[in-house]
Amino acid sequence: MKTRSANRSILIVGSVALDDIDGPFGKHPDLLGGSASFISRAAAYFTDKVSVVAVVGHDFPSQYLTEMDALGIDISGIERADGSTFHWSGKYSDDLSSRETLDTRLGVFATFQPKLAALHKRAELVFLGNIDPVLQLDVVEQTEAPVLVALDTMNFWIGGKRADLLKTLRKVHTLLVNDEEARQLAEEHNLRKAAARILKMGPSSVVIKRGDAGALLFHGGGVFGVPALPLEDVRDPTGAGDSFAGGFMGYLSYAGNLEPATIRTAMIVGSTMASFAVEKFSVDGLRGLTSEAIQQRFDAFTELTKFDSIRL
Amino acid sequence: MKTRSANRSILIVGSVALDDIDGPFGKHPDLLGGSASFISRAAAYFTDKVSVVAVVGHDFPSQYLTEMDALGIDISGIERADGSTFHWSGKYSDDLSSRETLDTRLGVFATFQPKLAALHKRAELVFLGNIDPVLQLDVVEQTEAPVLVALDTMNFWIGGKRADLLKTLRKVHTLLVNDEEARQLAEEHNLRKAAARILKMGPSSVVIKRGDAGALLFHGGGVFGVPALPLEDVRDPTGAGDSFAGGFMGYLSYAGNLEPATIRTAMIVGSTMASFAVEKFSVDGLRGLTSEAIQQRFDAFTELTKFDSIRL
Repeated sequence: MKTRSANRSILIVGSVALDDIDGPFGKHPDLLGGSASFISRAAAYFTDKVSVVAVVGHDFPSQYLTEMDALGIDISGIERADGSTFHWSGKYSDDLSSRETLDTRLGVFATFQPKLAALHKRAELVFLGNIDPVLQLDVVEQTEAPVLVALDTMNFWIGGKRADLLKTLRKVHTLLVNDEEARQLAEEHNLRKAAARILKMGPSSVVIKRGDAGALLFHGGGVFGVPALPLEDVRDPTGAGDSFAGGFMGYLSYAGNLEPATIRTAMIVGSTMASFAVEKFSVDGLRGLTSEAIQQRFDAFTELTKFDSIRL
Repeated sequence: MKTRSANRSILIVGSVALDDIDGPFGKHPDLLGGSASFISRAAAYFTDKVSVVAVVGHDFPSQYLTEMDALGIDISGIERADGSTFHWSGKYSDDLSSRETLDTRLGVFATFQPKLAALHKRAELVFLGNIDPVLQLDVVEQTEAPVLVALDTMNFWIGGKRADLLKTLRKVHTLLVNDEEARQLAEEHNLRKAAARILKMGPSSVVIKRGDAGALLFHGGGVFGVPALPLEDVRDPTGAGDSFAGGFMGYLSYAGNLEPATIRTAMIVGSTMASFAVEKFSVDGLRGLTSEAIQQRFDAFTELTKFDSIRL
């Protein structure tokens, strides 16, 4: 899948973390986590031009960096700083439908100040993971002329740094958020109206990730909706949204264009990668997938959603 | 749309009620409600062979019966009994995402004991609205040889009359429930596993209605999923599931077969009719729709969900 000359370079700026996950399948301490871990691995199935800019601490196992390197991900922008790796602890409800944060230790992430190398400044597709919108803007301003800037954010920034976030959004093409974040940002419960408001804030596309209710895309090409694939075994929803983002960005790189139809297909590729991610803990669901397995899962979405038109 | 000779007759047994609705758009007392009111009106757009068996009280406005008759719905099975019409009062949250029941007065519905006339016994498609499963079974046993029996139920019966419901389900082809009801019936949170369990209880198809998360169908033809159409104006979700059921059954009558592809299309027609219903109060959203309007809304689902396949 990686041989297409159209492949566009992707820069991912986000977190590389260690997670403690508790839930119906027991306690799993010190799992590899963080948005950039999921996004880069999901994207790397579609392009060999993925770079990550992030920071880890002295306690971060080198094997994960070696693995990323072996997957063809450019890790030259992952700095190892003096201190502890960002560490998140969460507990899921028995039915995995909700979770609570037990502990967040920012560690070296607290003073993360992304500085882009020349290679990274030239990235064609930029994904700004969920960090301080001031830093996100700073990253955009370091880039030279990306064809697409995508951004993820969360309630903490929408509520706490709204003015900065709005300023950053003016430089963003695609916003990827969940439904509650979209509602909070737009100050509007109705998702269609909320998306319309967000499209006036800067982005030309809004992707709303809704977990097991699927995902919606609002853009110039209209509205697109995809249900989640009903899965038999869901073990760990952590990283589902990031895996979606990785598949989405990876496919945009692979396709080499940003046509409305391409963005729709990218939504399905994103859904495909998210469906793999939730079946196992950490990034395990994204490990060792073949082109055939990804194709088959994509085709399951085609089969899931196809229906005949009628002429009344 | 009503001229196809293949049209199959539909019998709907359910409630015809008066509702008091409170919510973000103010108080609306004494609205026409009840499952059979929505189902029959939605179905009547697709077939002229809709019969309703229900009961109303002395206080039920005759104009609603006159209207049903004018729509070509057979109301000979709607009995006017001595007492008050079933009356439900509910209050929606400001964002319409949840509701609480303020009052339920069963009135004449408390002693409803459906007795089918000869015409109704011969119905080809039977829809058993959400009533006591003992009565639902009694209705099925009165029918002669329906090609499809569909059933709706609720938490009250799943919890309180489980054994009776399970007995009834053995005579049912299609179960239509919401996600919480499916989980409660199957005693399983995972919807795919829950559907698999329900398919062992008798039905050969399970339709799971998920409100603004769309709907899922599990049957021999695999899994089918449709997102809800994101609507600009939602005023009253009451009757959305019943309008879905009406469109679903109406299209099955119209198509004249029960092929897997037909059932998928019926899911879209159901979603279409539900999308009209929630835009206005009571059955107003289902009033006066043209074939063109229904076709256009159906096409909006095609447009919402279409995407190109990929070959990796």
